[in-house]
Amino acid sequence: MMDWIKKMNNNLTLLTDLYELTMMSGYLKSGMDNKTAVFDLFFRSNDNISYAVACGLEQAIEYVLNIKFTEDDIEYLRSLKIFDEAFLNRLKDFKFNGDVYAVPEGTVVFPSEPLLTVRGTIFEAQLLETALLNIINHQTLIATKASRVVTAANSEPIMEFGLRRAQGPDAGLYGARAAVVGGCIGTSNVLAGKRFGVKVLGTHAHSYVMSFSDEYTAFFEYARNFPTNCLLLVDTYDTLKSGVPNAIKVFKELRAKGYEPVGIRLDSGDLAYLSKKARKMLDEAGFPKAKIFASGDIDEKVISSLHSQKAAIDVWGVGTKLITSYDNPALGGVYKLAEIEADGKMVSKLKVSDTTEKTTNPGFKKLFRIYEDGKAAADLIALFTEEIDESRPLTVFHPVETWKKTTFEKFRIKLLTTQIIKNGKLIYKMPAFSEICAYARESFGEFWEEYTRLDAPHIYKVDLSDKLYDLKKSLLNT
Amino acid sequence: MMDWIKKMNNNLTLLTDLYELTMMSGYLKSGMDNKTAVFDLFFRSNDNISYAVACGLEQAIEYVLNIKFTEDDIEYLRSLKIFDEAFLNRLKDFKFNGDVYAVPEGTVVFPSEPLLTVRGTIFEAQLLETALLNIINHQTLIATKASRVVTAANSEPIMEFGLRRAQGPDAGLYGARAAVVGGCIGTSNVLAGKRFGVKVLGTHAHSYVMSFSDEYTAFFEYARNFPTNCLLLVDTYDTLKSGVPNAIKVFKELRAKGYEPVGIRLDSGDLAYLSKKARKMLDEAGFPKAKIFASGDIDEKVISSLHSQKAAIDVWGVGTKLITSYDNPALGGVYKLAEIEADGKMVSKLKVSDTTEKTTNPGFKKLFRIYEDGKAAADLIALFTEEIDESRPLTVFHPVETWKKTTFEKFRIKLLTTQIIKNGKLIYKMPAFSEICAYARESFGEFWEEYTRLDAPHIYKVDLSDKLYDLKKSLLNT
Repeated sequence: MMDWIKKMNNNLTLLTDLYELTMMSGYLKSGMDNKTAVFDLFFRSNDNISYAVACGLEQAIEYVLNIKFTEDDIEYLRSLKIFDEAFLNRLKDFKFNGDVYAVPEGTVVFPSEPLLTVRGTIFEAQLLETALLNIINHQTLIATKASRVVTAANSEPIMEFGLRRAQGPDAGLYGARAAVVGGCIGTSNVLAGKRFGVKVLGTHAHSYVMSFSDEYTAFFEYARNFPTNCLLLVDTYDTLKSGVPNAIKVFKELRAKGYEPVGIRLDSGDLAYLSKKARKMLDEAGFPKAKIFASGDIDEKVISSLHSQKAAIDVWGVGTKLITSYDNPALGGVYKLAEIEADGKMVSKLKVSDTTEKTTNPGFKKLFRIYEDGKAAADLIALFTEEIDESRPLTVFHPVETWKKTTFEKFRIKLLTTQIIKNGKLIYKMPAFSEICAYARESFGEFWEEYTRLDAPHIYKVDLSDKLYDLKKSLLNT
Repeated sequence: MMDWIKKMNNNLTLLTDLYELTMMSGYLKSGMDNKTAVFDLFFRSNDNISYAVACGLEQAIEYVLNIKFTEDDIEYLRSLKIFDEAFLNRLKDFKFNGDVYAVPEGTVVFPSEPLLTVRGTIFEAQLLETALLNIINHQTLIATKASRVVTAANSEPIMEFGLRRAQGPDAGLYGARAAVVGGCIGTSNVLAGKRFGVKVLGTHAHSYVMSFSDEYTAFFEYARNFPTNCLLLVDTYDTLKSGVPNAIKVFKELRAKGYEPVGIRLDSGDLAYLSKKARKMLDEAGFPKAKIFASGDIDEKVISSLHSQKAAIDVWGVGTKLITSYDNPALGGVYKLAEIEADGKMVSKLKVSDTTEKTTNPGFKKLFRIYEDGKAAADLIALFTEEIDESRPLTVFHPVETWKKTTFEKFRIKLLTTQIIKNGKLIYKMPAFSEICAYARESFGEFWEEYTRLDAPHIYKVDLSDKLYDLKKSLLNT
């Protein structure tokens, strides 16, 4: 297990908003630093997504287990002239000694559900806020976007190709990881391949074709050098007049040497028209199995549109629009205080807002998923100490429109909240990356497609247990 | 200088699309690996921006100077079973030995202008493509967005607060750096403060207020602990009924102890209404100098709207919308072959496209800026060997609509292209971060505001020299 922890390249301890440190220093000065607190990490219903694929837990936990203020860090903080020596001394041997709970990576989750819960002293739990949000917001955002693109493509494979347009190196690296958790078959990103064991994929660029005297020579050389992996980019000069005919010529020569081509890639132009024409040319030339790859500004909407136009595309390379979640480039996950110790006992807290839906859920909580006939039917947020009896009917109700009730007579229930860290120590066996991906497929498969479809999906029920609802109501009424 | 190079934390050598390595291996197999090639990095006019603030050169150069394939890396590449031993051996002692030219960080640049040019063997120049694009696309995107937000705010300061919503740790770190190059006065990101010497800023969160028995106690404790930096978040419960009155009470107590407050922060609600009401309350209580900070989903459009509503906001905290460049989250910079050696001499190359504007500019080039009356009047892309005589009139023309001509009689010309790396060695004195920021302000200040305004700006002239135009035309006609 130590091996795994050491994998971490970077110490992200200072990757925090200054105010976390200011507040920690304030808690210390006010003598509140050792009070136990509980924080929940969740996103809200106004985040433009109906469901999300939870992602980033592995990196979040690496961060927590590796927190260490170096002498350099403390010297820098001292130079800001905001902090006193008592606080800086306290940072010297800082270590997170609390508990972390989370849903496993790859779990399909919904607005207001705690993806991760931290329980510790307020001094240590406060520090974690910014970095946990940064890591989990990002990877969950990209895994969710990937899941949408994969949904649009039905069973056609999606390759993640966005590194050059990602928002910095980490966005490319962890974005590729998240994209594969979300359902992509692989990535062009070699570092992601090495770090996470993701399948890496690629062909060649226009510049490769331009580096040779002519297109045919470029294709000929590529086929000669990579006879078992011959995928040719055909749109450098003129796709139908030059690219596809030259590819077919080289494919015939390849076959004469005993190899079959992989196919061609289209990266520009009218993909519907070009793919249908190219398909016909390849078929007529005796290459019905040569695949057509498409890339260039593709997202779930473009895929749906090309499907409806009967484009002859077999594999999709998705770049910019996926790696940045272009049409919704941030998940607005928050980290909210749910409980804090006062006078020796835990007091539940909620943050009120203009609307009931934006008001947070108080208390130390856990998340259940209710299954009926093998499919997910509703989620239930309950207090941490509650148990659900599967042998008795269970009635759940909408947390705002409380007259909307559903009773489950025959159901199965699964606790999604899992303890990851206990008293600062990792107690969870981190799954291998392939296991995370398989679990993500399984979690997604538990939902009727009405809940996960791209347009106007059914709203999945996320309800509060009676006890949690009563607690929330009592706090709102005070 | 070595010190500076060693600052690099990460070896990003494998941060590349697989196809760069495939192509390198292809060039080696075809005996073309040592041919000299020239690649330009630039963005296109369809990138939804009128001007950009070039950013990321420092990290790009760190990357180039630190390229090294470790034994681990090579072992991983071998495991892919795509590459032969001759290629893997060649990677063992790989080092970039070519030349890099770029415009200095902070330079205001326009579509089709080379931000960076690499000249080296095609084997080494090809490898750099993906990482250079990733780094420069990201930082240029964020610096440009920051510049727009700063422009909207007129002289009111902008603080970068987006770390929790950034697309991963690097997006937060380098995004904060780019935001300050673009004109922000500082960031909440402590790591960016430590790494780049950026000013760090912050207050406290709603959870801080909720951790105390009541809002007044929370404010009282904050003021007691940070008497010289007392900025209070007033919207945890009720801004006007509770937050501002409690803040005023604490400000009076603070003043009695000899300290003046910094001000209050609003993070939700109707910022126009609340800020005007809060301003009145603060003024009437004797705190006309207490500043009002605003945060929460702010971008250049919100700032302009709040200005037109005469909101009483003094300082802006901008998060999600800036750190992700929310409404345009990717700069589509490309890296295109401009010249390659064939039969011992350099041959210019261009990538044709459907439109003349998307067709690339061939040849080894450099970028000039023409000034008239102290203001930037036009840019000129010329061949690298060209010189411009300031003592003779200069006529420039639109590269597509060639009848649009302008003649400068009295002008000054500045070469923006600067050599950074020569034969693999850094020959450029990297400016300090504060110098980069000062230069960025200076470069921005050289433009009439008609070119940089947010809506429907004038299109700035970017023209080709006669020689470059003739070269392009001759290649298009063959």
